[in-house]
Amino acid sequence: MIANTPSPPYYAVIFTSVRKDHDPAYEAMAQKMAQLAAQQPGYLGMESAREAVGITVSYWQDEASIKAWKQQVDHQVAQQKGRQNWYSAYQVRVARVERAYGFSKP
Amino acid sequence: MIANTPSPPYYAVIFTSVRKDHDPAYEAMAQKMAQLAAQQPGYLGMESAREAVGITVSYWQDEASIKAWKQQVDHQVAQQKGRQNWYSAYQVRVARVERAYGFSKP
Repeated sequence: MIANTPSPPYYAVIFTSVRKDHDPAYEAMAQKMAQLAAQQPGYLGMESAREAVGITVSYWQDEASIKAWKQQVDHQVAQQKGRQNWYSAYQVRVARVERAYGFSKP
Repeated sequence: MIANTPSPPYYAVIFTSVRKDHDPAYEAMAQKMAQLAAQQPGYLGMESAREAVGITVSYWQDEASIKAWKQQVDHQVAQQKGRQNWYSAYQVRVARVERAYGFSKP
């Protein structure tokens, strides 16, 4: 689904990753983290897709919301497992969305 | 591949889309546009994945590079075909990358 975000400005966290070998625990954790993120203050939405790379973009009201989510305890555990078990590489980019436009077929 | 971007600040264009039925012309056009974007001034890299939604993030030196690419003639044709034939919905978000960090397994 395309996230239904408000008018800019708001923030985007672009998380791009390359996974290692399949680990069945990954999917459950990814789903749990998506649910947990959605309950955080300042959360605006999320979009995700994976082929050769995985891209997850989460949208946030402000930088403070992003920092709080990064420090959230269960999320800290997931981040550590990510580095140890799941990802061979990732990149996190925090960006301020300045303008947005879209199109939707009637 | 994870794009090898320079130190922030730079810009990201987050293009999230939902496709209509399969059209074999789409893949060829998408590939042509990726090649063409890479030749534009100010281009820094691109990441792309598609499942239920497609996410393509392209990275640019500044807003001027993004505007020039949007106006590029062949890209204009592709944008029109996108609205007519390929996408049921899309959202474009232009964002200023303020900080970035990553991880890569040795």
